[in-house]
Amino acid sequence: MVKHRLEAFSDGVLAIIITIMVLELNVPHGSSLKDLAHLIPSFINYMLSFIYLAIYWNNHHHMFQIIKKIDGRVLLTNGLLLFWLSLVPFATAWSGETHFAKIPVMLYGIILLLAGFSYQLLTQSLIALCENEELSTAINKDAKGKISIVLYAVALPICYVNQHISLVIYLLVAIMWIIPDKRIEKIFSQTK
Amino acid sequence: MVKHRLEAFSDGVLAIIITIMVLELNVPHGSSLKDLAHLIPSFINYMLSFIYLAIYWNNHHHMFQIIKKIDGRVLLTNGLLLFWLSLVPFATAWSGETHFAKIPVMLYGIILLLAGFSYQLLTQSLIALCENEELSTAINKDAKGKISIVLYAVALPICYVNQHISLVIYLLVAIMWIIPDKRIEKIFSQTK
Amino acid sequence: MVKHRLEAFSDGVLAIIITIMVLELNVPHGSSLKDLAHLIPSFINYMLSFIYLAIYWNNHHHMFQIIKKIDGRVLLTNGLLLFWLSLVPFATAWSGETHFAKIPVMLYGIILLLAGFSYQLLTQSLIALCENEELSTAINKDAKGKISIVLYAVALPICYVNQHISLVIYLLVAIMWIIPDKRIEKIFSQTK
Amino acid sequence: MVKHRLEAFSDGVLAIIITIMVLELNVPHGSSLKDLAHLIPSFINYMLSFIYLAIYWNNHHHMFQIIKKIDGRVLLTNGLLLFWLSLVPFATAWSGETHFAKIPVMLYGIILLLAGFSYQLLTQSLIALCENEELSTAINKDAKGKISIVLYAVALPICYVNQHISLVIYLLVAIMWIIPDKRIEKIFSQTK
Repeated sequence: MVKHRLEAFSDGVLAIIITIMVLELNVPHGSSLKDLAHLIPSFINYMLSFIYLAIYWNNHHHMFQIIKKIDGRVLLTNGLLLFWLSLVPFATAWSGETHFAKIPVMLYGIILLLAGFSYQLLTQSLIALCENEELSTAINKDAKGKISIVLYAVALPICYVNQHISLVIYLLVAIMWIIPDKRIEKIFSQTK
Repeated sequence: MVKHRLEAFSDGVLAIIITIMVLELNVPHGSSLKDLAHLIPSFINYMLSFIYLAIYWNNHHHMFQIIKKIDGRVLLTNGLLLFWLSLVPFATAWSGETHFAKIPVMLYGIILLLAGFSYQLLTQSLIALCENEELSTAINKDAKGKISIVLYAVALPICYVNQHISLVIYLLVAIMWIIPDKRIEKIFSQTK
Repeated sequence: MVKHRLEAFSDGVLAIIITIMVLELNVPHGSSLKDLAHLIPSFINYMLSFIYLAIYWNNHHHMFQIIKKIDGRVLLTNGLLLFWLSLVPFATAWSGETHFAKIPVMLYGIILLLAGFSYQLLTQSLIALCENEELSTAINKDAKGKISIVLYAVALPICYVNQHISLVIYLLVAIMWIIPDKRIEKIFSQTK
Repeated sequence: MVKHRLEAFSDGVLAIIITIMVLELNVPHGSSLKDLAHLIPSFINYMLSFIYLAIYWNNHHHMFQIIKKIDGRVLLTNGLLLFWLSLVPFATAWSGETHFAKIPVMLYGIILLLAGFSYQLLTQSLIALCENEELSTAINKDAKGKISIVLYAVALPICYVNQHISLVIYLLVAIMWIIPDKRIEKIFSQTK
């Protein structure tokens, strides 16, 4: 089974998800600064989701460069990842439009958690197909992925108390991914 | 005539269909769990259509890897398939938003039937261009395709009695396609 | 200047236009057959536009296979063609939703005319870059293109009398393009 | 790090942005010429944004042909550019629908300014990776980019007086980019 086809399809789907998200930014009926200000939460959430999807594209593409072949399990876990990521525009819109209400922010966090978990499943299914040397590289990346999932899981119950803290956690996870690998790994190894 | 161009175009169209479908998931105005619960049928149908389109992409790509050249008939039957599949987001949205009302579920089934039938026509037009060995492989795949069409056709009149049974049939067809080929062929050969 | 980049971009834009058009098919609020019947004009126009865009993709790709290099003029005329084609989903939606009212059908015809005219400009700019043998092939295709433009131009004033006749003409042009080249050329040479 | 992947992703995102913009052109409920006339500002802004995005695609692709490798900084600045460009459909729709009201036209200008500035950052990050000869070519292009940014910055305060003058400036910038490089460079070197 050729990996190139899955890579091209996933890249296409991620490019479309990241772009159509703007269609959920409802154009205000009025034309005042106040009308625009009303969209600030939607805009913040749009920016956060844009960063997340860009990171997923980057990591996905990076991981697929290591491997050479795929199997049915990779197809399924990859499909699962794309499914949860395809719901990001919906969750982003709901969370933004309700000005970060509790339930929408929780849904956003659940989608991030499920996408993160699916990415782990995809990583595992790729490791099962990989040679030794690449395997270790993949596991190194795993570290960040596992930290993200823990942070998503922690952010969920925090929503009951204050959903804005959860949003800050989601933002911190995104920032953690933007910072180049080596630096962040040092920080976390010092914390432990 | 080069097959690569048709493959890339079809892949692009399928990636876009599967992704824009989320835009039909209407963002609720409220922010309560009840508002979200109201979307459950839409979400279930979204998931079902996502699986269907992912399977079509997979089978389409798989089938085109076998063949080497295309002709005008392939262009037409492929176009017909893409046309019916392009209506899946519409049928999905209507069926989900009306909470699986009779007529919308029937329309969804008709679109699935027409897409399945177009795929058969495409298969036939590709077999006509193929060598012997590949032909047999293609016919093997045909089995699943024909079973799907029969199940779609059976599900249609059942809608009059209870459209939820039809939905379960659509789900079973999708599951049949996810299960790897050999296992499902055994099950069906035992049933016969 | 590499032609491949322009080809890939144009293919992408055409695949997106043909696919997002379904988002303009408004999902009915009700769930009866009557609600669906109300969408029949929209559906007919959707189908017509789908055929047109598929033909444009086919012809565009075919023409670019002949040529080897592009220049600034090709970039401009190609951009002009994509611009008019990008308006097809809008014109299709307006024409369908107003159940083929006079002005919307006229606008649809004007967009088809401008797209057809831009395609002629693109053809001319490609001929200017081409060698002798390919030039003649390109001019052969020109025949159909010129007939289309004449038919679009004829259909416009007919809208004042009866816009449904214009729609039939648009449909005839689409059918003319689907029929393989040699046959249609015979018919038109016999008519002359 | 392979540049091809970033190029394909950026091309895909730009093709999608330029195409989904038409979905923001709201289909009128009526079917009269007056209903269509009401959309003229939206249409003008759509056309302007279409030209801008086509130019960005052209320049982006052109610039990436010169370079051979990319780094993390290129990934970030490229992501920043795509982020601002992804907001063009939103700003275009708001500006057009409010018939070029002050605040929406300002927002449109701010987005253009931020996109132009991000493009400069991308250029700088690419120059840092480039050899001598290509560097000079890139700096030559820089001229147009810097003029654009100055004009965007000038257009912003002018919005307070008359936003239509700002729109004319945006149009002039677009025209400046369409005119082949050598000619425009002559004009500006004569002005200095």
